Amino acid sequence: MSAPKKVVLAYSGGLDTSIILKWLQTEYGCEVVTFTADLGQGEELEPARKKAEMMGASAIYIEDLREEFVRDFVFPMFRANAVYEGLYLLGTSIARPLISKRLVEIAEREGADAVAHGATGKGNDQVRFELSAYALNPAIKVIAPWREWDLTSRTRLLDFAEQHQIPIAKDKRGEAPFSVDANLLHTSSEGKVLEDPGQEAPGYVYQRTTDPEDAPDTPQMVEIGFERGDPVSIDGEALSPAVLLARLNDLGGAHGIGRLDLVEGRFVGMKSRGVYETPGGTLLLEAHRAMESITLDRGQAHLKDELMPRYAELIYNGFWFSPEREMLQAAIDHSQRHVTGTVRLKLYKGSARTVARWSDHSLYSEAHVTFEDDAGAYDQKDAAGFIRLNALRLKLIAERNRRVS
Amino acid sequence: MSAPKKVVLAYSGGLDTSIILKWLQTEYGCEVVTFTADLGQGEELEPARKKAEMMGASAIYIEDLREEFVRDFVFPMFRANAVYEGLYLLGTSIARPLISKRLVEIAEREGADAVAHGATGKGNDQVRFELSAYALNPAIKVIAPWREWDLTSRTRLLDFAEQHQIPIAKDKRGEAPFSVDANLLHTSSEGKVLEDPGQEAPGYVYQRTTDPEDAPDTPQMVEIGFERGDPVSIDGEALSPAVLLARLNDLGGAHGIGRLDLVEGRFVGMKSRGVYETPGGTLLLEAHRAMESITLDRGQAHLKDELMPRYAELIYNGFWFSPEREMLQAAIDHSQRHVTGTVRLKLYKGSARTVARWSDHSLYSEAHVTFEDDAGAYDQKDAAGFIRLNALRLKLIAERNRRVS
Amino acid sequence: MSAPKKVVLAYSGGLDTSIILKWLQTEYGCEVVTFTADLGQGEELEPARKKAEMMGASAIYIEDLREEFVRDFVFPMFRANAVYEGLYLLGTSIARPLISKRLVEIAEREGADAVAHGATGKGNDQVRFELSAYALNPAIKVIAPWREWDLTSRTRLLDFAEQHQIPIAKDKRGEAPFSVDANLLHTSSEGKVLEDPGQEAPGYVYQRTTDPEDAPDTPQMVEIGFERGDPVSIDGEALSPAVLLARLNDLGGAHGIGRLDLVEGRFVGMKSRGVYETPGGTLLLEAHRAMESITLDRGQAHLKDELMPRYAELIYNGFWFSPEREMLQAAIDHSQRHVTGTVRLKLYKGSARTVARWSDHSLYSEAHVTFEDDAGAYDQKDAAGFIRLNALRLKLIAERNRRVS
Amino acid sequence: MSAPKKVVLAYSGGLDTSIILKWLQTEYGCEVVTFTADLGQGEELEPARKKAEMMGASAIYIEDLREEFVRDFVFPMFRANAVYEGLYLLGTSIARPLISKRLVEIAEREGADAVAHGATGKGNDQVRFELSAYALNPAIKVIAPWREWDLTSRTRLLDFAEQHQIPIAKDKRGEAPFSVDANLLHTSSEGKVLEDPGQEAPGYVYQRTTDPEDAPDTPQMVEIGFERGDPVSIDGEALSPAVLLARLNDLGGAHGIGRLDLVEGRFVGMKSRGVYETPGGTLLLEAHRAMESITLDRGQAHLKDELMPRYAELIYNGFWFSPEREMLQAAIDHSQRHVTGTVRLKLYKGSARTVARWSDHSLYSEAHVTFEDDAGAYDQKDAAGFIRLNALRLKLIAERNRRVS
Repeated sequence: MSAPKKVVLAYSGGLDTSIILKWLQTEYGCEVVTFTADLGQGEELEPARKKAEMMGASAIYIEDLREEFVRDFVFPMFRANAVYEGLYLLGTSIARPLISKRLVEIAEREGADAVAHGATGKGNDQVRFELSAYALNPAIKVIAPWREWDLTSRTRLLDFAEQHQIPIAKDKRGEAPFSVDANLLHTSSEGKVLEDPGQEAPGYVYQRTTDPEDAPDTPQMVEIGFERGDPVSIDGEALSPAVLLARLNDLGGAHGIGRLDLVEGRFVGMKSRGVYETPGGTLLLEAHRAMESITLDRGQAHLKDELMPRYAELIYNGFWFSPEREMLQAAIDHSQRHVTGTVRLKLYKGSARTVARWSDHSLYSEAHVTFEDDAGAYDQKDAAGFIRLNALRLKLIAERNRRVS
Repeated sequence: MSAPKKVVLAYSGGLDTSIILKWLQTEYGCEVVTFTADLGQGEELEPARKKAEMMGASAIYIEDLREEFVRDFVFPMFRANAVYEGLYLLGTSIARPLISKRLVEIAEREGADAVAHGATGKGNDQVRFELSAYALNPAIKVIAPWREWDLTSRTRLLDFAEQHQIPIAKDKRGEAPFSVDANLLHTSSEGKVLEDPGQEAPGYVYQRTTDPEDAPDTPQMVEIGFERGDPVSIDGEALSPAVLLARLNDLGGAHGIGRLDLVEGRFVGMKSRGVYETPGGTLLLEAHRAMESITLDRGQAHLKDELMPRYAELIYNGFWFSPEREMLQAAIDHSQRHVTGTVRLKLYKGSARTVARWSDHSLYSEAHVTFEDDAGAYDQKDAAGFIRLNALRLKLIAERNRRVS
Repeated sequence: MSAPKKVVLAYSGGLDTSIILKWLQTEYGCEVVTFTADLGQGEELEPARKKAEMMGASAIYIEDLREEFVRDFVFPMFRANAVYEGLYLLGTSIARPLISKRLVEIAEREGADAVAHGATGKGNDQVRFELSAYALNPAIKVIAPWREWDLTSRTRLLDFAEQHQIPIAKDKRGEAPFSVDANLLHTSSEGKVLEDPGQEAPGYVYQRTTDPEDAPDTPQMVEIGFERGDPVSIDGEALSPAVLLARLNDLGGAHGIGRLDLVEGRFVGMKSRGVYETPGGTLLLEAHRAMESITLDRGQAHLKDELMPRYAELIYNGFWFSPEREMLQAAIDHSQRHVTGTVRLKLYKGSARTVARWSDHSLYSEAHVTFEDDAGAYDQKDAAGFIRLNALRLKLIAERNRRVS
Repeated sequence: MSAPKKVVLAYSGGLDTSIILKWLQTEYGCEVVTFTADLGQGEELEPARKKAEMMGASAIYIEDLREEFVRDFVFPMFRANAVYEGLYLLGTSIARPLISKRLVEIAEREGADAVAHGATGKGNDQVRFELSAYALNPAIKVIAPWREWDLTSRTRLLDFAEQHQIPIAKDKRGEAPFSVDANLLHTSSEGKVLEDPGQEAPGYVYQRTTDPEDAPDTPQMVEIGFERGDPVSIDGEALSPAVLLARLNDLGGAHGIGRLDLVEGRFVGMKSRGVYETPGGTLLLEAHRAMESITLDRGQAHLKDELMPRYAELIYNGFWFSPEREMLQAAIDHSQRHVTGTVRLKLYKGSARTVARWSDHSLYSEAHVTFEDDAGAYDQKDAAGFIRLNALRLKLIAERNRRVS
């Protein structure tokens, strides 16, 4: 790979990506364009502009992507009820493709030949950033300084920063006790104090959700309205995607909902332990499943359940922009036409439980299921034939097995 | 189908199956053998013996099947992390095959040509009972009185009972506000007051779990030990399968854990709403997943997740004794060889969360994942090649798409 | 079910459906509308009109559905490379939904309350007809005379025919040595002389394909052009769907291609033995796979292969008009955008083999795969990292297994 | 990776692996142990011994692995009816794990710290060799000279050979027009003259099968006997696995059966074109499917069909020694208990067609399927209930859709 001439860097404004900015300039003698996105991580972005200016970025992009993030990435994923390894709501995974998409678009506009990110060589994020970038622009170069440079210890990093007049916030002098990623969907924490999965995570790791023990003693009801598979309102108030998710985060967070402590299998082959907080997403998953429970047919619902693990794996592994993820999305989206209605959840001290759901599109038929007289909706005698024909092959097996084994 | 000569009836001792007992005698002039099993439903069985004697049963079987139930049915199912439609722990479904197995075995011993059950013609249980019976004895007759007789109203049933001197408990005069099934794994409630899924279930429906709001204000920790995929101890004390599950039920129930209110798609084609309480099973599922998270390889875990919905559907639909369920079980069981270790759960007001897990069989490698110096366990540069080859096909697609579309 | 007032009958003009026509009139005193479709079965339809008139049909529909059949049913199915149980090209299965669709549409236009078909109670076709009808009009009645009447022997059928002045062709006096179904996609034969799967099918069973031994001694090349997954031309000549399939049938049939003798598992639970001839379809499947081999990405192709058995099963079982078949179709169709190009097949004495394929949409990159110098398209050193990270989890397993077992 | 001290090399005795032998000695100054296996590739092995001795191999292993290869690798794979991308019988893929297994075992016996192979950096074989080696010995080093050295042209290779007195056969002076791999299961050809998939493969590429046009003008019948899923006899004669497969190769090859010209998606991301000849395997696949068609239940068969593409992909990608392949194998093997009986194939000019199959373990019931009187084996009226309950959910959907859309 020849040296890059102009690089678009995913820039947070923090110490690490500031070091990267400078390192790119010094290592490659190239121009660096910074791209800073608001994905709901809850940080001020203007300081990033100042810092990028100060460090000689050749162009600075700061964008609020929250609505696009939720509408075009988070919601499609929740239509699938996607969870990785049974539990993880993919909060980090789903943000990376959008960042790469913008990096590549900005590179094309700016005439840059490369993009760069601050993910390490051990994690999944490098894969997600890079697969997305290559899928969107097969000619782009991707620079991952953490895999290239020799700044392999905290001391060397700080030395490099001092040497290049990069300001170091006081609290960055020491090492953080764990590493954090955050966006509108979730906050994840991993590393350091969390590295022993046999040790309970310390309470201070949780940053976004009240400890269930400190949550209100009174349950709260919330009604989420859906249209065609996506949430559109809370307690009857129509909200845009990002605003709605933020509202759910507030509700879930206040009640201590969405904490998860797990060990997961990374695409690069090792296991890692993470602590995740996904308050709004946890409400959304519960509510979406409940909405589907009355509006999806069993054939659709079961097929979705069978496809889901693969779909989640694709997102986790960084294949959002792959044709097979799109194929699965086409199938999933096809099923959501009637996922319209309302779900009522009860929030209380760490859990969100569905207590009611209703829809004009409901397939639930009280006339059929009733214990009372069903006025002929269902002829119980049909069940005899249904069972006998379903049993026929099992009988033939049993007869064969009695005969020959 | 010719008339049965001798029938083995799944007999609870309650009013409905007592009416069936008598109806079989009068309708077919046949002998009736009763079979009453203790599956942990929490009812005295001796009264059933008395009643069966009084009504002229030609033989009476009363058996404690709790250990067999948990060891050979519940635990194998939990090795799969089986949930139906994302949520239901299959508490009713998994009990039916065992009852059918014993019905058929008793029929063979007693020289009976038929078995009978008290499930209605609208539900799944008839299917589960009958598919299991036919799979185990292809020549057996199955009698489902609810699909045959004309006792189609409460009044007629009570008339029949009175006419045949069947004692009617006072509280059975009126109609129950909902219908209940229970065993060591769960209690399910459905029908009547629960028929509108848009209405919250009344509190009195829950019989086995404390309301989370009334649960202890202090969390409780519990450690579950596993060997080869099955739980074997609680807080270090080795317990037999049924005793262990009962203990988990006590723990979960006290903390309000395992309540579920859902709408599900029945095999016979309609949707129904059920309220389930599975306190111990909920702890077990959480703990088993956590145990697998460090002892199963990603390849195993993801394959299990993909197979699980089908496996759960087979059990729900009554195909426990089918060769395809056994094929899936063979795959699942193969994966459990190293699922050995301990999981610590925190129980609090309706939720059970994993906080720690450890195992001599762990695949988690702190040496590989650490943010610190890994002493060469992992070469970050490998990731570059890994990503580039994973990206190659995506690049070729992108190039093609730029070329032709 | 109350008696029907007006029935639309799938009417072939043959003896059996003529008896049904009369039986419906006499049994139910209802009006009968006949519907006769040309699906390419190769029979004159006008005699059916005459006979229906003579027997007092209250309306007569005769329609050429060949183009619709191939365009909207056969081609979408071939996009999936659908084969049932590894071999069967679903020639009968795919025709039933279209017939039901027209039966229901005509019933709605004619104000009929029922439809009727001539399929027996043992086969799959009854299921396919009826599931389709109910899915399209949930209020329709379906009458299956073979399951209802007492004309259960050939003698009784002929008596009924004579009694009602239904003309009986001489060759229908005796029993046919096997039963045949045909349409533009295939001819199937089953029953009677074919009932023992241990006996080779007699040569006279094959009606549509030359015996490979009698096929030309010289191979023939044929080029099939595709656009977005569907065949559109043969040897450069653009053809409509039905004309194209007919042409492929001629080509394949002449070379003895598409014969299949198999035992399959019916949805109703038993196994049956069938002899199928699908000359054009066999060419189409081979060519479509070859077209996909250069235009589909591996991710798409493998996902399609995994979904295919389910898709084929749904069609075989009669669930064409089900939401899960439509979901799968959405995924499949999404993958076909670039399946455009040409495939050359060599036809010779019973087999069709791909010998060449090319496309502007090809993903095949000679630059990457070449044994010669690839000018840097591919860095072989990337493979080392790719393999090491793919191996990492396997190494961790091996280390664990050496440690504990 | 530190330099290897002692390497076990997969050594064919040919020019390329002789160069590797020498290169390992000169590059690393290490001992080299050669391992040459007879997997049925049809070459003399003793010349390899001579050459290895001459070149100073520190130990020489020459082994006949044909029976192990067929019994423990080929047959288990055929139990799954495994085909990659719908067509490829995995002839190369399935041989690699066995070679790696022996390399690792010999390394352990010889105290070697590394193994080496002659696969290039662009293909799948490097992946298969190395994943297998790492899975069997996580501490082993793997050396892939083609990815390391600078002998990147034919000229350089020959120069190196001459420089080190490695004898060069005359026909190796020029470049081979394509590259060949062979074993008892198949011969594959790729590269050079085959690199344009739009050009028909020249006839001289085929080495193991008669051109169908030159095959006998008279069909030949062959009967293959199976026990528990594996072939055990031909025309009634019991044969060991390798002898049986060799016999099938002779039969198929003589009749021009098993030629395949395809483009496949490699694990490393590019597509390649290969010409495969798998005469015996093609007969075996056809016969095994036919054997299963009467001895496997539909539930087993369909599940197998759904799992197969994943299973084939795992083998293709080199994951034979992975826990998920073993899980799938456990499921597959579980299904084969009754796959016992005989299949008769008709071989003729390039195709093998099943014409008869029989088994004491057959599930085919003439009593059920017959068009004649079935003596009550099957009650056609059961089908009505079966269909109505299968239709219920479709009706509910149709009603809902009429109501709201």
